[in-house]
Amino acid sequence: MYLEKVAELKKFYQDTLFNDVLPFWLKSDLIDKENGGFITSVDREGKSYNDDKSVWFQGRCLWTFSKLCNVYGVNEEWAQAADSGAKFIKEHCIDEDGRMFFTVTKDGQPLRKRRYFFSESFLVVGFAEYYLLRKNEEDLRLAEKYFDLMYTLYLDPSKDPFKITPKENADVRALRSNANPMVLVSSAQTLRRVTGKTEYYDEIIAKIVADMLNLHYKEDLKCVLETVYLDGSILDNAAGRTINPGHSIENSWFLMNYAVQTKDEALLKKALNILDWSLDIGWDEECGGIYYFRDVYGRPCEQLEHDMKLWWVHNESLIATMVAYKLTGDEKYKAWYEKLHDYSFGHFTDKEYGEWYGYLHRDGTVSHTQKGSLWKGPYHLLRCLILCDQILGAYDKETLPALL
Amino acid sequence: MYLEKVAELKKFYQDTLFNDVLPFWLKSDLIDKENGGFITSVDREGKSYNDDKSVWFQGRCLWTFSKLCNVYGVNEEWAQAADSGAKFIKEHCIDEDGRMFFTVTKDGQPLRKRRYFFSESFLVVGFAEYYLLRKNEEDLRLAEKYFDLMYTLYLDPSKDPFKITPKENADVRALRSNANPMVLVSSAQTLRRVTGKTEYYDEIIAKIVADMLNLHYKEDLKCVLETVYLDGSILDNAAGRTINPGHSIENSWFLMNYAVQTKDEALLKKALNILDWSLDIGWDEECGGIYYFRDVYGRPCEQLEHDMKLWWVHNESLIATMVAYKLTGDEKYKAWYEKLHDYSFGHFTDKEYGEWYGYLHRDGTVSHTQKGSLWKGPYHLLRCLILCDQILGAYDKETLPALL
Repeated sequence: MYLEKVAELKKFYQDTLFNDVLPFWLKSDLIDKENGGFITSVDREGKSYNDDKSVWFQGRCLWTFSKLCNVYGVNEEWAQAADSGAKFIKEHCIDEDGRMFFTVTKDGQPLRKRRYFFSESFLVVGFAEYYLLRKNEEDLRLAEKYFDLMYTLYLDPSKDPFKITPKENADVRALRSNANPMVLVSSAQTLRRVTGKTEYYDEIIAKIVADMLNLHYKEDLKCVLETVYLDGSILDNAAGRTINPGHSIENSWFLMNYAVQTKDEALLKKALNILDWSLDIGWDEECGGIYYFRDVYGRPCEQLEHDMKLWWVHNESLIATMVAYKLTGDEKYKAWYEKLHDYSFGHFTDKEYGEWYGYLHRDGTVSHTQKGSLWKGPYHLLRCLILCDQILGAYDKETLPALL
Repeated sequence: MYLEKVAELKKFYQDTLFNDVLPFWLKSDLIDKENGGFITSVDREGKSYNDDKSVWFQGRCLWTFSKLCNVYGVNEEWAQAADSGAKFIKEHCIDEDGRMFFTVTKDGQPLRKRRYFFSESFLVVGFAEYYLLRKNEEDLRLAEKYFDLMYTLYLDPSKDPFKITPKENADVRALRSNANPMVLVSSAQTLRRVTGKTEYYDEIIAKIVADMLNLHYKEDLKCVLETVYLDGSILDNAAGRTINPGHSIENSWFLMNYAVQTKDEALLKKALNILDWSLDIGWDEECGGIYYFRDVYGRPCEQLEHDMKLWWVHNESLIATMVAYKLTGDEKYKAWYEKLHDYSFGHFTDKEYGEWYGYLHRDGTVSHTQKGSLWKGPYHLLRCLILCDQILGAYDKETLPALL
């Protein structure tokens, strides 16, 4: 069954979205009626166990509620949630120097600010999608401004107004992380679609994709390395040998999408390579599911959670294999999709209270019963449900980019 | 068997120490013959998979090799390893401002420096024990100087010469961690024993122990909270509700030992309470072993590794229950010791290559096969083997403090 039974599978995704996952969040403590914004650390039943607010999730929830309206039609509850998130971000999540915080208290006082520009990246995609909902030019300008800030920091970290003490001594060992170009590509693609400024964003995306492919993409090792020296050479320790299959798989569908947009067959081939390699090294033949981390040479992983199975990895894999099948018709992606579908919906679903568990032990048993945290909220699973529903309904591969 | 069969158990500890664990490390890549110092990230067989050096472990290995000589008699291989560690620390692990690094390259170039004073704490215990081996006054002065620096930073963090950007915004939420007083007590006890400056260190220990008991020790909740507000009140989120049973158990034997030294029955009672509570909330009734983290109210834990079983937690528990039994004669500690002994030596031991695995899944299966990392090396297990051997040989409880 599955991929050939499009109507049945679309119904499954919509049912899960509208009768399971969305009701879970709307009945939970997610939407802070008193202070605005979103509390994502909710337990199995949806009750808050930590009122602190993740700034990533203020932007991510803004994206989710806006996207729901933009795809399925405006619903007042979703639209008001988006409004509340947008207001909370503008009022409480941006520091005086223009950089964003990482966490704030429930009433919006700053708790933590980090060096990374991921908070900014979720502002960009959140406000871009929110602009499509409310059509306020000011929101689109904000998204564009923050994308430009991210890109400036990417090109020249010394321009960062946040003068944070460096984590590692770059004089001794200067490294680069693939997470940065990855969120830049995703943010740029969103703005390219929303603004129509194709030329501006294509020039930037081309530069960033080239960096990724030249420096992190390793054809000989059949992997994408998360952390390399500035010239792309390999740091031969656990950090340098780390593969994050979920990250690479998420990246693969960003790149597949961009390859379709620009009719770049060579890029499509490389994006499919990334997907193939990541599934091969990521899949746990013994217990099923995709590992969180792998060492490219099979040496020991340092992360305590290296062999756990994380929900978002499986959401990204469902999207990526579905996109790959749609684009290529290759039966191997159909087989992967089905294997991933069975594992994911068979292991992560909480049949009693709804939504997905976030974290399983290697053997597939549940290790954490909460549905949200500072890292998990209404984002990856909902995005997966919305996009898979959309991809299944796409007329042909040329219509895909408008959806993703 | 076990605790009443003293000779048999002593033989077991000595056999494990001299015929299993020590040979593993001496045959491994631990001792860096080329650059000096120690590489602790070794795989199941003892081969390095990461040449970077943990500064904690330069001090910890200095402690271990010195202690071995001080307890079992000088052995040239151990003494030379201690010499090499002492030299490497002095030459490569201290920054110009006097604070220590956290990691350095194998040839001693600085990689990372952190705000915490744990690197300093291991310099203190390492050089104190090394002084007993080599009797160079300069080494003892260095240990005393670094203890005084730690205590200064504890009393007034603004005196830190390392002006690192704060991790959290203390204007909004100022917190204190029990790990700081804990390593101070342990370091002060070591210097008290080595220097004989009883009055000086007793005054400091009394102040620190009072802070711990007034601010982190919660009689009503039957636990020690790792992180509290500056006045000891409870931060009601996952971080504030976190109990680290292994940490508390380690702390309990530091405090039991100090209670014996100072004949403080009230402190002994509280130290035993900490042990009792931590075993009660920490022990996994279903799978055995002690959890890494627990939430005091049974709310969700945030750490992905919260239900894993870590080697060091079990080492500290073996020491603490053996000390408690020696001090009180209470049969419940004998029963705990035996349960812990069976679980620990039954699950962590690698019968093929020697030493212990560091990390087990909740169900007791091995999650990481490596024997060392930046966090695991020849310290907790060796300290446990040496101290348990010593405790079993102690004539009566008054002789304990000289051993610990």
